[in-house]
Amino acid sequence: MPDKLADMRTIKFLLHEVLKLEELTQYPYYEDHSRETLDMAADTAYQLAHEVFWPSYQEFDQEGAQFDGHKVAVPKAMHEIWKQCAEGGWIGPNVSYDDGGQQFPITIHALACFLFNCGNTAAAMYLGLTYGAAHLIKTFGSKELQDLYMAKLFAGQYAGTMVLTEPDTGTSVGDMTTTASKSPDGDYYLLRGNKRFISGGDHDLTENIIHAVLARTEGAPPGIKGLSLFIVPKYRVNGDGSIGEWNDVTTTGIEHKMGLKGSATASLTFGDKGDCRAWLVGELNHGLRYMFELMNMARVFTGMQAVGVASAAYHCALEYSRTRLQGRDITSRDPLEPQIPIIQHPDVRLMLLKQRAVVEGCLGLFLYCARVHDQEHAVTDPEEQQRLHMLLEMLTPCCKAYGSDAAFESIRLAIQCHGGSGYSEEYPVAQMLRDCKVFSIYEGANGIQALDLLGRKVPMKGGMALQALNAEVSKTIAEAKELAPLKDLADKIESLQNEVVQATMHLGMLGLSGKVNQYLCNATAYLEMFSHLAISWQLLMQAVVAQKVLDAGSTEENFYRGKIETARCYAGYNVPHGIATAQMLTADERTALDFKPEWF
Amino acid sequence: MPDKLADMRTIKFLLHEVLKLEELTQYPYYEDHSRETLDMAADTAYQLAHEVFWPSYQEFDQEGAQFDGHKVAVPKAMHEIWKQCAEGGWIGPNVSYDDGGQQFPITIHALACFLFNCGNTAAAMYLGLTYGAAHLIKTFGSKELQDLYMAKLFAGQYAGTMVLTEPDTGTSVGDMTTTASKSPDGDYYLLRGNKRFISGGDHDLTENIIHAVLARTEGAPPGIKGLSLFIVPKYRVNGDGSIGEWNDVTTTGIEHKMGLKGSATASLTFGDKGDCRAWLVGELNHGLRYMFELMNMARVFTGMQAVGVASAAYHCALEYSRTRLQGRDITSRDPLEPQIPIIQHPDVRLMLLKQRAVVEGCLGLFLYCARVHDQEHAVTDPEEQQRLHMLLEMLTPCCKAYGSDAAFESIRLAIQCHGGSGYSEEYPVAQMLRDCKVFSIYEGANGIQALDLLGRKVPMKGGMALQALNAEVSKTIAEAKELAPLKDLADKIESLQNEVVQATMHLGMLGLSGKVNQYLCNATAYLEMFSHLAISWQLLMQAVVAQKVLDAGSTEENFYRGKIETARCYAGYNVPHGIATAQMLTADERTALDFKPEWF
Repeated sequence: MPDKLADMRTIKFLLHEVLKLEELTQYPYYEDHSRETLDMAADTAYQLAHEVFWPSYQEFDQEGAQFDGHKVAVPKAMHEIWKQCAEGGWIGPNVSYDDGGQQFPITIHALACFLFNCGNTAAAMYLGLTYGAAHLIKTFGSKELQDLYMAKLFAGQYAGTMVLTEPDTGTSVGDMTTTASKSPDGDYYLLRGNKRFISGGDHDLTENIIHAVLARTEGAPPGIKGLSLFIVPKYRVNGDGSIGEWNDVTTTGIEHKMGLKGSATASLTFGDKGDCRAWLVGELNHGLRYMFELMNMARVFTGMQAVGVASAAYHCALEYSRTRLQGRDITSRDPLEPQIPIIQHPDVRLMLLKQRAVVEGCLGLFLYCARVHDQEHAVTDPEEQQRLHMLLEMLTPCCKAYGSDAAFESIRLAIQCHGGSGYSEEYPVAQMLRDCKVFSIYEGANGIQALDLLGRKVPMKGGMALQALNAEVSKTIAEAKELAPLKDLADKIESLQNEVVQATMHLGMLGLSGKVNQYLCNATAYLEMFSHLAISWQLLMQAVVAQKVLDAGSTEENFYRGKIETARCYAGYNVPHGIATAQMLTADERTALDFKPEWF
Repeated sequence: MPDKLADMRTIKFLLHEVLKLEELTQYPYYEDHSRETLDMAADTAYQLAHEVFWPSYQEFDQEGAQFDGHKVAVPKAMHEIWKQCAEGGWIGPNVSYDDGGQQFPITIHALACFLFNCGNTAAAMYLGLTYGAAHLIKTFGSKELQDLYMAKLFAGQYAGTMVLTEPDTGTSVGDMTTTASKSPDGDYYLLRGNKRFISGGDHDLTENIIHAVLARTEGAPPGIKGLSLFIVPKYRVNGDGSIGEWNDVTTTGIEHKMGLKGSATASLTFGDKGDCRAWLVGELNHGLRYMFELMNMARVFTGMQAVGVASAAYHCALEYSRTRLQGRDITSRDPLEPQIPIIQHPDVRLMLLKQRAVVEGCLGLFLYCARVHDQEHAVTDPEEQQRLHMLLEMLTPCCKAYGSDAAFESIRLAIQCHGGSGYSEEYPVAQMLRDCKVFSIYEGANGIQALDLLGRKVPMKGGMALQALNAEVSKTIAEAKELAPLKDLADKIESLQNEVVQATMHLGMLGLSGKVNQYLCNATAYLEMFSHLAISWQLLMQAVVAQKVLDAGSTEENFYRGKIETARCYAGYNVPHGIATAQMLTADERTALDFKPEWF
């Protein structure tokens, strides 16, 4: 078992030394906060993760969510986790005082999400979904919907879900067939349809579950432009806030999944008895747009989930590698010499370092995104707001797709460090791999993220978003070049940046000349290359801070040297592959595009 | 469910068109065989895989091997699988007539192993282990041991195991502490010690289990040079062949693993009552050497296991992608157009093609190795034997390590093709990923394989083994260059070959100058690069045959074009990364080597 799930010293380094989160407190929304309150929140979240989430991690897997044919029961320990999180205000710590929150930066919320996922990712799901539904109502819902549901969701009295997928409609959201028809008196809609893969779709945690459901009204345009967003409670809520009748939402089953077993993934039938009442959010046919406006942070959070698990796995592997004695230095031929901890074998150390780089690089990126989001909402200059928003738009697909893929690979290495024990469920790393697999699939499969990056984000506003990001990367590279020990590293990352720019221009020309399929056929490789740059840049940003502190004579040499050399390691092993990918893209690799289905 | 587990047309192509297996029948040992008997064996093995192994694949996972505190029960369906395989002579189809076998080439045995692993990898384990123990006895055991055990093992009346690992001794085999002391009358040894992770260590399949155990005799040298090999039956066997007393081998538990649950991975205590009798195989202190002489094929077979699972997963993904309708072509904006099968999306097609390339490239490599092994045992010229043996030595670590890692990655892609359904245990791909994970760990963890390749095989006989392999690669490249449509592809692979040679020479100089840690610290990256070359070469070999057949006017255009474009795809996506790795090696990347444990 690991002695820790995440490194709080690194987290404080990121929050304060790299991201200067405290500077937010100069803006009115955050004015009550200070470095102390931010730290206290971070420490409390870690404590919850370690003492409340983590102890039942393996129990959640063994027990799983249970479906008795009618209703779902969550793992027993989930009730206490929910209670403590609800009481501590952890469903929406960034929510305004008016809505019962504590007005923390979303960076703190994101960090808490990360830490809870370090502790128990299935358990953390229930919180995130509830926040998502409440946030939708807050942002787009009528006052009536807000009054009925919002406070109860943020307080954890109700739970929430996001309901999109149908048995035949996953990625192709626009093809969903669930219908909503106006009720005779026009007060509400009647919903009818089957939904699948609904995380937290049913459970016994709360007295009510509030579903945010996409459906199509009669006469709506086909495709995604005809989807509207509805609030559908499991039980109707009376005007006085008391629980009313069952709302004809039936749980028909839960998935038997590879992992994340404590999180109930339900199939739901809406309106089997013809009386499932749904209330429209905002305007008709704007449903997907509403969902999408929250998507950026939702996708950053999905990356967080994955890397949270990878952080816990990394610390398991680190602990194991420090204590497991096996073999001797490769230059020793004397079998009577005492055995050494496996961390001393270069191959194991490299595996650990690769895990560490993923965890610290991705966490840095996620918190950076959250910090940008906070800044965007704090500043008033529209141009700066737009710039910040574009940064977030560019980085979101990397957070989600690279975060989830790199986390999976990182946990694979954690298992490898454990040898045979890693394959045994006695240690938690096998479960972590199983739990983590889903993050590359849900919240938009990673192939979709890649199309989003290359097909939508890169050409966004005539390439301005990409330029905005590139400017940030260049700034960090320039800063690093000023520091002699980092010059080589900065040069290396700059060489990747140049190749990425070249490849992007090349692809852009293909797109402009109408060769859309050629332009997009290697989107996944593009995203990986782009992410190598993004993570190298984030780690370089950390290295710059670390080098400056060392130059100023810090006594924490191990800590700061660790940061610098982690950046160097990541770039050393990934920049060459990023460049290779860029060159492959520029050379118009298209075998797969031309491969005919009948050749399989 | 897939309509097939492996493509028999491809297998026939490999056996006959690429490897010309039939040519073996000119040698005395195989003279009774013909293309017909070889095909019949291949078809029968596939039929067994499909009709006997596969139907209980998911059942094995749900039921698992069961331990009641005393003994282990295998999944119920295993009994029938064992019976059919034993009756069909599938434990050792390559064994000589004298030993009750059918004198098939080991290539046929390897193919059967591959196919059985396509069908049910946990089930196939029991066969392989039994063959291994029997083969040890046949090769190194006394006539007495052979008479007592061999025929019964090959016939499946007994089962066998290979017993190395101890709770504190995995990779560092030389540190094992199990001891063997001579019995008072000197007829046998008394064994005492605890072993762990013993595949097939206990079960109820057969009336007896014959353990091949490494242990240390009193006064033996420390380390690997003091290990001897013993045969230790679970029940002693009387002189007349009847089962005698229990031999003090106690099962203390089985692992709860991430996958491969139908295969019992037991902890065994030998000699708890002080009366566990063990019989020496061959000479004292040569135990590890005996094990190692069988290691090459054992490691090729481990790669086979992994890629067998990947083949089944690939066919699941192919079937799913052909039938799952989702979305439209990226250039279509009309939501009323009918949806298309996801195989038509370039990203999905690329994922399928990557899987296919791994399966066909690795299978090609494994069968090539088996074919080389057969050839080595058929020819009489010692120089040619040595050359063939060196080829096998060079390729073995790639088969095992790259085979298992690439198979795992391939199955990850198979899951991704399935979307959310891939994460559900309703489809078999999730189990395949879980089952496959172990192959990177056991039979020498992949990090060890990498050290074996770079530290032992590359410098073997002054680099002659590497040269022998390089000559083979060059031969294929030269052949491909003669065929106009393959010239580009051949050039690309040659560029990787050149970089590999450069990097190897660079590393060799480091090794010679005593910088052993620097020389070996990127062994894993080296193995991956080397394997990219090996697989590109194998696929090129297939492409050369295919192109010639097409040039001669074949009507099977889809089949042969598929082979050529699969080779092109693999090289297109992997050669650039192989070259990037070579350049990283030449640039002496050593961050991980220099990273101090206290920096973590």
